[in-house]
Amino acid sequence: MFNELFTPRFAQPAGSPIRELFPYLSRPGMISFAGGYPSPELFDAEGLREASARALTDGAASLQYGPTEGMPRLRNALAEHVAGRGIRCTAADVLVTTGSQQAFDLLVRVFVQPGDVVYVETPAYPATIQTLRLAGAAIQEVPVDEDGLDTTRLAVMLEAAPRTRRPKLLYCVPTFSNPCGTLLPTARRQRLVELARQYGFVVVEDDPYGELTFSDDATEPLYCHGAGPAGACNPVIYLSSLSKTVAPALRVGWMIAPPEVLRRCAIAKQTADLCTSPLNQLIAAEYFASGRYLATVRHARAEYRRRMEAMVGALERDLPGRVRLVRPKGGMFVWVAHDAGVDPQSLFCACVEAGVLFVPGRAFYPCNPDPHTMRLSFAAPGVDDILEGVSRLTRAFDAALAVGVEHAL
Amino acid sequence: MFNELFTPRFAQPAGSPIRELFPYLSRPGMISFAGGYPSPELFDAEGLREASARALTDGAASLQYGPTEGMPRLRNALAEHVAGRGIRCTAADVLVTTGSQQAFDLLVRVFVQPGDVVYVETPAYPATIQTLRLAGAAIQEVPVDEDGLDTTRLAVMLEAAPRTRRPKLLYCVPTFSNPCGTLLPTARRQRLVELARQYGFVVVEDDPYGELTFSDDATEPLYCHGAGPAGACNPVIYLSSLSKTVAPALRVGWMIAPPEVLRRCAIAKQTADLCTSPLNQLIAAEYFASGRYLATVRHARAEYRRRMEAMVGALERDLPGRVRLVRPKGGMFVWVAHDAGVDPQSLFCACVEAGVLFVPGRAFYPCNPDPHTMRLSFAAPGVDDILEGVSRLTRAFDAALAVGVEHAL
Repeated sequence: MFNELFTPRFAQPAGSPIRELFPYLSRPGMISFAGGYPSPELFDAEGLREASARALTDGAASLQYGPTEGMPRLRNALAEHVAGRGIRCTAADVLVTTGSQQAFDLLVRVFVQPGDVVYVETPAYPATIQTLRLAGAAIQEVPVDEDGLDTTRLAVMLEAAPRTRRPKLLYCVPTFSNPCGTLLPTARRQRLVELARQYGFVVVEDDPYGELTFSDDATEPLYCHGAGPAGACNPVIYLSSLSKTVAPALRVGWMIAPPEVLRRCAIAKQTADLCTSPLNQLIAAEYFASGRYLATVRHARAEYRRRMEAMVGALERDLPGRVRLVRPKGGMFVWVAHDAGVDPQSLFCACVEAGVLFVPGRAFYPCNPDPHTMRLSFAAPGVDDILEGVSRLTRAFDAALAVGVEHAL
Repeated sequence: MFNELFTPRFAQPAGSPIRELFPYLSRPGMISFAGGYPSPELFDAEGLREASARALTDGAASLQYGPTEGMPRLRNALAEHVAGRGIRCTAADVLVTTGSQQAFDLLVRVFVQPGDVVYVETPAYPATIQTLRLAGAAIQEVPVDEDGLDTTRLAVMLEAAPRTRRPKLLYCVPTFSNPCGTLLPTARRQRLVELARQYGFVVVEDDPYGELTFSDDATEPLYCHGAGPAGACNPVIYLSSLSKTVAPALRVGWMIAPPEVLRRCAIAKQTADLCTSPLNQLIAAEYFASGRYLATVRHARAEYRRRMEAMVGALERDLPGRVRLVRPKGGMFVWVAHDAGVDPQSLFCACVEAGVLFVPGRAFYPCNPDPHTMRLSFAAPGVDDILEGVSRLTRAFDAALAVGVEHAL
């Protein structure tokens, strides 16, 4: 009886292309470059145990419902935390969300109805694409190059768009993007904000990886460029999360936006989950208060950099001329384009056979996939596994090429 | 710039009518019958501290992302837990959600598009009404009496409805309803399931209060009546939560539904928040494993019964003939109808003045409010506060009547 009752979008919904890889993960000895998970070895379990014990000393606060907007202690801590990235705001500007995925979902509920145009920096994080698809958005791809979102081509798109087909939102990950690992240069950040002001759209800056930089050069979030003079409206809404730096299991993310947006997102959040776990919010607040955060993030930066260098070095050494990549300046991912002579499906099967997993690039395109691409994560596996994984990948390239040659004969 | 970009439903969205009462709550000495919060004195803080410490011993599991469907340990524990209520299912039938509010929200995403008819037992929980409103559902009220949902009138509604205006979903809280505290009798449960089968709609059974019974008579969830013979489709989807029994701050709820529904809700959940906090899920699983759950719930039952009896006794003693109520058989609420001669707004103001707060009944009606009603919660205040609160309520009735008489002169 249920099948007749689902909405059309849920009649035959496609699942996550990344989750479809899960069955392969359980194969013995599989090395995975597929996940978007941080390395569990980098979690500060001891610090979080202490924070949790402190949060639970006041059970009346940490076990009860909390305000939809978030626990005041955490909102304060987050306002202070983002100041370290150059963002000036107060606790009142922060909405705590159940991971930054929820923050994006709330924005989509509040801004997007079926048919509304949304621009997405492409390739893009698949859950973003899925959220927009299920909301019925008209998704348009904004191309990227080795420096991230191509603002020149964006300007051309905007100029060519009739007034009714202008975007309401533009989604991007300007700092160490998922999947490309690119860092948007300052000039492009400024240009993007100008275009948002000129054409009247909101830029959603998703910044879960911003803390995971591999150099000492600080790049200000897009949000800072949008701030402008006092009284001017900031067209950038900022999203971030503790999932990549402290622990995904806290499900603590946040949004920084003007009051009229936060008020509506809080109303949407009441229907979504009433409030984000006050226990987890207080654990996060205690963790910030403990002063351990900085050391944890510094350790993660160093370790992820080591793993990135191992992966990029091995790819360049083992697959010269067969793959093109941009050395990431931070984050968790390397985006790899490979020779069009290699059939992507054969390559994927050969990799599974060889015992190494990646996410095929087509998952990251809302409309027009470039199948000769792949996302490799260097965050979860250790250096030895990375080297072994790349060597398996190399063997898989050979095998896939052999298949291609067979087919051609 | 933002105001032009919101969707029409979020252009001027109404907030929660209960949250609008928050400013009054902070007045010194205010006694609140308004909240839907469980009593923090009944939280087993010690048991949860221990559960939390155990969950955190394996940080790699409890701090990482988890499966969207829920942690296997908790899904197993919940399948076992609901067996105590008479529900036969396996872990695979359970989807863990971020509170049962999220479970309902996921169902609305999957089943309801703008204009779809949804029946709601009325009066009803305001967040349910709000979720449906924001989804653009065509809400129709199903009346209740002192035994809960009136299945005779429901049958009349269904028979009168043209085929295209039949409901997709019917939402109800058959066991100790919010706000009425009623318990749906077995015969009506059977009839409701029959009607769902006959007219092809899904019954959403929201059961957060089912464990909080004040007697030893067990009433089987609606879900059990829907199970039918092997192979027959159960038209009931079951939702529940640990918020009223263990701790709201865990944000652990769940849904029991057929695989085709769970699969779609899991896809919707990926876009909503990826997964419910694995840390909180493992705390809940450890808490079940500790064996302390039963004692905690028994204690809550006894204490809530004591508070209910204090409230109902005082109302009957202090306001005879001026209020009508049905003595709750469980849960956290008494629903009170009062004399139409008392102006509801004057009564509310007089109560605030006297230092007692309730939720005006109109908040619980999606379409046609009966303003001469109020919801009183006996869960959070202690017995002394309950007695003092009812005595303030009595004075407020006098004051509101005096205002009414003045107006009439």
